[in-house]
Amino acid sequence: MMQLFLGIDGGGTGCRAAVAGGDGRIIARAEAGPANIASDPDAAIRNLLAVATDAMKQVVGASAAAELPRLRVVMGLAGANFTPSVARLRAGLPFTALRVETDAFIALKGALRDGDGIVAAVGTGSVFVRQLGGVAHRIGGRGWVLGDEGSGAWLGRALLSACLRAGDGLAEITPLLKSVRAELGGDDGIISFGFSARAVDFANFARRVVGSDDPAAGALMAQAEADIAQYIALLQPNPAVPVVFLGGIGTQIAPHFADRWQIAPALGSGVDGALWLACQIGVEP
Amino acid sequence: MMQLFLGIDGGGTGCRAAVAGGDGRIIARAEAGPANIASDPDAAIRNLLAVATDAMKQVVGASAAAELPRLRVVMGLAGANFTPSVARLRAGLPFTALRVETDAFIALKGALRDGDGIVAAVGTGSVFVRQLGGVAHRIGGRGWVLGDEGSGAWLGRALLSACLRAGDGLAEITPLLKSVRAELGGDDGIISFGFSARAVDFANFARRVVGSDDPAAGALMAQAEADIAQYIALLQPNPAVPVVFLGGIGTQIAPHFADRWQIAPALGSGVDGALWLACQIGVEP
Repeated sequence: MMQLFLGIDGGGTGCRAAVAGGDGRIIARAEAGPANIASDPDAAIRNLLAVATDAMKQVVGASAAAELPRLRVVMGLAGANFTPSVARLRAGLPFTALRVETDAFIALKGALRDGDGIVAAVGTGSVFVRQLGGVAHRIGGRGWVLGDEGSGAWLGRALLSACLRAGDGLAEITPLLKSVRAELGGDDGIISFGFSARAVDFANFARRVVGSDDPAAGALMAQAEADIAQYIALLQPNPAVPVVFLGGIGTQIAPHFADRWQIAPALGSGVDGALWLACQIGVEP
Repeated sequence: MMQLFLGIDGGGTGCRAAVAGGDGRIIARAEAGPANIASDPDAAIRNLLAVATDAMKQVVGASAAAELPRLRVVMGLAGANFTPSVARLRAGLPFTALRVETDAFIALKGALRDGDGIVAAVGTGSVFVRQLGGVAHRIGGRGWVLGDEGSGAWLGRALLSACLRAGDGLAEITPLLKSVRAELGGDDGIISFGFSARAVDFANFARRVVGSDDPAAGALMAQAEADIAQYIALLQPNPAVPVVFLGGIGTQIAPHFADRWQIAPALGSGVDGALWLACQIGVEP
């Protein structure tokens, strides 16, 4: 039977998988629950196995489980660079040819394949990766406590902070600040929300900022875009390479940078990037 | 027997108490363990009772416990404005004449008694209170997640963030940033520290910034002082009133503001403020 390839994008909200033959054309797709290897490695192993088996069933039917070991597999996982769980993951999965990468790396490969460019991934968090002559260099992406400037979590937290400052009289109360203050129950409600909020809880408030014509939202977006521009400018070589914006916020704000850099669409998704890498296994010199 | 007065300053690191007679002169002092009414109200009640009993033993000996109910008592407690535990606290203590205030309020009264002025309390957190014609108005003090600009926690977190940014190449690596990076184990160590750090853990790093001649420390201090100045300027009436700086960072940086405002020393501590308030109980109109 011909060699098959499997790419998986596994993250905190769910896993997506795609299977291809030797020509790289996708012949099956599947989805499953979250794969958070840092916080719940057992559930991650179960869901990664489920998504792989589901995809393979569409190709080989009942023998899917038996066929898994001979696949060539690449999976991109959030936090894969920052957890001792990768060895446990390998031991819990049946694959013999398995490469584990970060979510940022498969997003980069999905967006650019082996081309030169910069990926600015701005969603709940923010991370910036340059690829030049096949060499990837990553900056940012430090989490909301100490970094992730310009991200959804950063914007949401800055919005709540602005609500408190306006309440103190340090800044003008705009309609947006007034409505968020009322929604959360004033100072006490905002402070209490802030102490228990996770990145995604802060990021939910970013929706109120992006694209809003409220003056406070405008000031926060200007700061976020300046931070994002600083990261991209630092990565830009001379001559400059195209920039691909990814993520909920990234794709929305991409046009704002069109006068400064060449903005390119992503060639494909993170799953596409993982699958493209899987097709290289054994081919690389 | 003459009326006695008790003032207590109860905080997350310990309780201090002082007893005075009708002339306000302190005749006994005592200390006990933490009184964190938000996170551990039972221990808070035990320690507040212990510190009161210890102080009273020095005045009336073995009958201390029996004498507690007839004291006039004011206690200042961190978070007293932000917890439903105050009613539980009252029920668990033997005092009949008890007034519970925030730590910021007794600090204000200790610093200014009933005089006009502004208290800038900058330690682990930051809070700013103006007293004018006996009326107090408080701003800031929102905790490190959304506020506390210029505080120790703010400075420490900003230092770690600067370490990450310098590691990415967004800023110059100074000797201070280099040594903190090495100490915490580079990017991964800093990120991991940041995700589990409490306010006091961040504030421990502020010591490396305050008074340092490192250029990165200088930039952070300039930002902190600008934020602190903004809070004070907002509170300043016309004509301006004296400013009292409190807290580990506040007392160190006070001289930097001497060309802008009249800097005054605190008349007394938080315990003094609580005791001064206790002496007013029954005297107030």
